[in-house]
Amino acid sequence: MGLWEEHIRKVVPYVPGEQPQGDRVIKLNTNENPYPPAPGVIKALREMNPELLRRYPDPSACQLKETLAGYCHLGTDNIFVGVGSDDVLGMAFLTFFNSGKPILFPDVTYSFYPVWADLFGIPYETVKVTGAFEILPEDYRRECGGIVFPNPNAPTGICLPLSQVEDIVRQNQDVVVIVDEAYIDFGGESARNLIHRYENLLVVQTFSKSRSMAGMRIGYAMGSRKLIKAMEDVKYSYNSYTMNYASIVLGAAAVRDDQYFKETVGKIIETRERAKGKFAGLGFSGTDSRTNFLFVSHERVPAAEIFRALRERQIYVRYFPVPRLDQYLRVTVGTDDEMEEMFGFLETYLDS
Amino acid sequence: MGLWEEHIRKVVPYVPGEQPQGDRVIKLNTNENPYPPAPGVIKALREMNPELLRRYPDPSACQLKETLAGYCHLGTDNIFVGVGSDDVLGMAFLTFFNSGKPILFPDVTYSFYPVWADLFGIPYETVKVTGAFEILPEDYRRECGGIVFPNPNAPTGICLPLSQVEDIVRQNQDVVVIVDEAYIDFGGESARNLIHRYENLLVVQTFSKSRSMAGMRIGYAMGSRKLIKAMEDVKYSYNSYTMNYASIVLGAAAVRDDQYFKETVGKIIETRERAKGKFAGLGFSGTDSRTNFLFVSHERVPAAEIFRALRERQIYVRYFPVPRLDQYLRVTVGTDDEMEEMFGFLETYLDS
Repeated sequence: MGLWEEHIRKVVPYVPGEQPQGDRVIKLNTNENPYPPAPGVIKALREMNPELLRRYPDPSACQLKETLAGYCHLGTDNIFVGVGSDDVLGMAFLTFFNSGKPILFPDVTYSFYPVWADLFGIPYETVKVTGAFEILPEDYRRECGGIVFPNPNAPTGICLPLSQVEDIVRQNQDVVVIVDEAYIDFGGESARNLIHRYENLLVVQTFSKSRSMAGMRIGYAMGSRKLIKAMEDVKYSYNSYTMNYASIVLGAAAVRDDQYFKETVGKIIETRERAKGKFAGLGFSGTDSRTNFLFVSHERVPAAEIFRALRERQIYVRYFPVPRLDQYLRVTVGTDDEMEEMFGFLETYLDS
Repeated sequence: MGLWEEHIRKVVPYVPGEQPQGDRVIKLNTNENPYPPAPGVIKALREMNPELLRRYPDPSACQLKETLAGYCHLGTDNIFVGVGSDDVLGMAFLTFFNSGKPILFPDVTYSFYPVWADLFGIPYETVKVTGAFEILPEDYRRECGGIVFPNPNAPTGICLPLSQVEDIVRQNQDVVVIVDEAYIDFGGESARNLIHRYENLLVVQTFSKSRSMAGMRIGYAMGSRKLIKAMEDVKYSYNSYTMNYASIVLGAAAVRDDQYFKETVGKIIETRERAKGKFAGLGFSGTDSRTNFLFVSHERVPAAEIFRALRERQIYVRYFPVPRLDQYLRVTVGTDDEMEEMFGFLETYLDS
């Protein structure tokens, strides 16, 4: 072993969901949108001028920021864009969580939070959710180095009302509070309007779920000018040009095509609500998800067994073999046809 | 001022080169390639299936890695890809430079190195280049936490012969040595074949210069399996999906179109060599650049004045108002027409 190996940064890397290939696969395991990107995005792709690729992209990604700013009724200096919301969240951890005090996040939540904390040497404490997986704002009234939580939460799908999000922000004005709204478009109320009242609030969203653009890697944060400026400074100290030309152009086109966005999000919500009834009819119970996935547990059959049975049938869902979650499956809301096929299989399987 | 502001990471961000807009602008300031991307890239863009954008891209960017591995006669596990070579270099700093001892790099070099060191709290010492801007391998024989240097160096364009690069690597096998070969395709000899002999050598290259794809943000590193695995672990701890679908597909297409690559690189080298003669004829002296830029100083007129005069004429070159460099201009090699226009102006200007 070379001496240089002693000084490698030690990490336990995040393991992304499986990406099975094949035409017969039904992929309900990574919360992708079952519908293609908006017609406006496809048109923008077809019209993209490849000559421009020889040039550096606009480091400030103005076109994308301006379109988002118009859509969200914010200034461009209230918006930070990055390579998916993971890049945005990682950059926010690096920028804001330097006090030496532990940051707080729920014990059942997005599994990347402890990974970033470990990577950047940020101490953290997890806060227990209730037996019904609920986040209680009063549990976040304590000294800390910062707070981050998803709303709706993952993998539970439970959404806090805006008043409770505001309660957490208001009680913690000495630290930065990050609300990770990856799934907010599927039925929650965004905290983004609160950024005018709370300088310490950062709201993070993504194009990967509701905008059908996981493949383009576009995420963004909204916050006070001071917060955004601090993140921009750190970003420019790491990589000035994070957003490539294609993601800037296609991202802006996605935001402009608002009708398609509303239609497809509406369809996913309808499919989800029908799926809740069907799961219940098959003996599953679950949370009242406000996301594009369901979080369900069967009254009789262990989740691990159902997971394997589905997988053999080429139907992929997500199973987390960890305490508290190991009786649950996280099932992405697919098209009606995909859901029919899954429910058809489950009916026969659970009946046998 | 909120208390939270006290714990923002303090940085002095890197300032990227100006990106002036307009049809009449001659842009010789950011070392972009004057030729469009390869026909194979344009074809791949036209044939891209937008439906696939709804899915997450392959987190390991296999298609791109395999194409690069074939081209470089390496294994895919010898290759790391990132969002431009800045992302790759930043990730390498974060992964390898954790010993607490100062890392070394030349005092005249790429201005991002001290920025990453500051961002990640890595101590560093700069090593003086000679009066003729040369890097001397013997200056790097000392205890340190790691070494990074560009070859050819920026903004001087001077290229070390491979034997001297190997000397630096051989003398420092207890630390990771990063050779930043952003400009190697324009006339230097890559150190990439040395990775089989030196486990501690990381060679970084980019698609932004010789492959005309600055707009797509693609960089890569080549190294021993151990080095690459360590970087992958850190990358998966920050952002699993850094390369978007378009960059994977178009990047692979660029590598496959080798004939176009060789033709355009050959043209740039020819233009550069002619430009050296013309600059000399106008009273400039400079380094023997092996890159796609020239580094020149006029015998009589201060560089800052020439810079401003060119700029008024909408011809943008790069000027660094810092000690040792402030008598030089860095001029990107453009098309023959662009260079003619610049030389035409300089002739009149210097004559007056």
